[in-house]
Amino acid sequence: MNPFTLYNPTKLIFGTGAVSKIAELVPQKARVLLVYGGGSVKKNGSYEQTVKALGKRKVVEFPGIEPNPEYETCLKAVAVIKKHKLDFILALGGGSVIDACKFIAAAALFKGKNPWKILTSYGAEIKAALPIGTVLTIPATGSEMNQNSVISRRATTEKLAFANDLVFPRFSALDPAFTLTLPDRQISNGVVDAFVHVMEQYCTRPSDAPIQDGFSETILRTLVSEGPKALRKKDDLAVRANIMLSATMALNKLICIGVPEDWSTHLIGHEITALYGIDHAQSLAIVLPKLLKYKSSSKGEKIVQLGKNVFGIEPKPKKAAIEKTIGVIAKFFKKMGVGTEFADYNIAGDAAKEVSENIAKHYGAIGENADITPKDVEKILRL
Amino acid sequence: MNPFTLYNPTKLIFGTGAVSKIAELVPQKARVLLVYGGGSVKKNGSYEQTVKALGKRKVVEFPGIEPNPEYETCLKAVAVIKKHKLDFILALGGGSVIDACKFIAAAALFKGKNPWKILTSYGAEIKAALPIGTVLTIPATGSEMNQNSVISRRATTEKLAFANDLVFPRFSALDPAFTLTLPDRQISNGVVDAFVHVMEQYCTRPSDAPIQDGFSETILRTLVSEGPKALRKKDDLAVRANIMLSATMALNKLICIGVPEDWSTHLIGHEITALYGIDHAQSLAIVLPKLLKYKSSSKGEKIVQLGKNVFGIEPKPKKAAIEKTIGVIAKFFKKMGVGTEFADYNIAGDAAKEVSENIAKHYGAIGENADITPKDVEKILRL
Repeated sequence: MNPFTLYNPTKLIFGTGAVSKIAELVPQKARVLLVYGGGSVKKNGSYEQTVKALGKRKVVEFPGIEPNPEYETCLKAVAVIKKHKLDFILALGGGSVIDACKFIAAAALFKGKNPWKILTSYGAEIKAALPIGTVLTIPATGSEMNQNSVISRRATTEKLAFANDLVFPRFSALDPAFTLTLPDRQISNGVVDAFVHVMEQYCTRPSDAPIQDGFSETILRTLVSEGPKALRKKDDLAVRANIMLSATMALNKLICIGVPEDWSTHLIGHEITALYGIDHAQSLAIVLPKLLKYKSSSKGEKIVQLGKNVFGIEPKPKKAAIEKTIGVIAKFFKKMGVGTEFADYNIAGDAAKEVSENIAKHYGAIGENADITPKDVEKILRL
Repeated sequence: MNPFTLYNPTKLIFGTGAVSKIAELVPQKARVLLVYGGGSVKKNGSYEQTVKALGKRKVVEFPGIEPNPEYETCLKAVAVIKKHKLDFILALGGGSVIDACKFIAAAALFKGKNPWKILTSYGAEIKAALPIGTVLTIPATGSEMNQNSVISRRATTEKLAFANDLVFPRFSALDPAFTLTLPDRQISNGVVDAFVHVMEQYCTRPSDAPIQDGFSETILRTLVSEGPKALRKKDDLAVRANIMLSATMALNKLICIGVPEDWSTHLIGHEITALYGIDHAQSLAIVLPKLLKYKSSSKGEKIVQLGKNVFGIEPKPKKAAIEKTIGVIAKFFKKMGVGTEFADYNIAGDAAKEVSENIAKHYGAIGENADITPKDVEKILRL
């Protein structure tokens, strides 16, 4: 195990009625920017409950955050904050809305001329941020309990991440009931996204970390068991609660402590989404099985351990166990309705080449051993 | 799963060299009360590293915190704080020292006449507390990353717990190297204490909480695997790191979210220690197997699940699986060198009767279903 720091000050309020608690958690004199996406929050009850909990506080609404939130949209929100002298940001929605709010919170207090530097510095340029709270309606990204954010800039087909402790939400209210009305596609995407989050922190080289491994395997097992149930039984609140908690735990800085991480599936996936506009989880489902296959020599031990502890696959012979485990993961994604091939999404052009060119432009070599070059990315995507 | 709040603002610094980080984490102008127990911190390097990290800050030392920290001793520390106008408390040691500091931090700012009320109100009377940091040298209680504390008053043979968010440590530095010089008895006690902490949050009634169950089983498996290794290989830092992390995770408010808890083993154990002065973990080792046996009808399903997922015990037939699992737990405690019978500790008098009388005095009925009466406690202890 490597040395690590574990720090997560977000207060997570979970369960039926969670939103009512924000009445005490948002400062009484706060001037609030209420940020959301499309109209779904007005259909599932979350908007109504949130507005009620905010009571008589000054609230300015900022709807229209798009999936894969857009830099230009965030800057418009910053202008609204400045115009109305707002001092608290409440995110109502899924990971896109929360990610947008993290960037808005930092950009609102950014002293430099060009807030794009927040992204190109991976958050290092953030010196202050407005406080954020969230009401989560889509379990997927874990953004409700971490300090990460991903922002897109369509004009330049860029999609960049940043992180900074100053953008941890002060609180997040999670009521699984809001997820009962989600379309299948969003449940499926969320389950796949959370599954891949765990894999990026788990499926590297062995590091004698039984606590972290066991926690990761627990989340994976829960997603594999509860995900398909959620598609079958659309009114099962207990299943939704287990999925919602899994997605938060998959990326709240817990399972990564002291272990190597490999975020290359996400980095490659971001480029695919930036280029072709497919859903984030769809891009991950294309990349992960191929990447595991390509890196099965360095990741082999953990793939076998995963196969045994999550899917009950006999660990010997090793080569067969690896193949079988990767096959079962791809099968799980398909069972969740998320295709694992470019062909499933009618992507025109030479994706393998275009994506590897963007990886070269943005990162160079990636992976826990920094041994996945842009050339490797091209080979991976041709598998 | 029940509704819950998950909140833990403690910054955990883990690994070799962790103590040096407190140079940045203690405020530069802090006036520090440095609290420790006996002399072991001067032998394992932790005292030297801590003093070095504190640098030129004003530091007043308060040594002499006893195991099962004493109310009267804590009040003396409060007097030192007031005399020297100190504003930060640094705990250096194990759970006893940290628990003492939590009480001292609250008592130092307590406005009422009688600080004992902090304990009789279970912490509800705490309105403010001095900030606390910790340097942990004994993995066991989890106090380094929670808001709980247990204080004893020998004059009245009382041992009472309290909890309040205001006494969460601001940071805790955990360097597993400090645990290499611990006597076997302290390693064993720590492993047993952490094991029982998990059991109190896990072994209740089933509640469809696969994340929490899996996390708990992970910690139990790690303790069962690493505990005996630590006694055999006294210089294995990786083993010590896994034990240290297990003990923190066993009681940092993570595995208890949304599930029933049953702290009756601890409540009964506290009375045994208060009456007969045996180690905390020893008292737990006496109680847990007997309590599981006595409550095997209500706890049966979880005992079988535990047997299967932690010890690989065949879950059918159920009755045999329950007996076998309880037997294996007792065997594990003995393997760690911690006896499971009163006879192992030469306790004179009718312990079953005396302890049940104190349970009647302090609590009445206990357990996750409030169905363990003092009469049941007597029967449990006679098993």
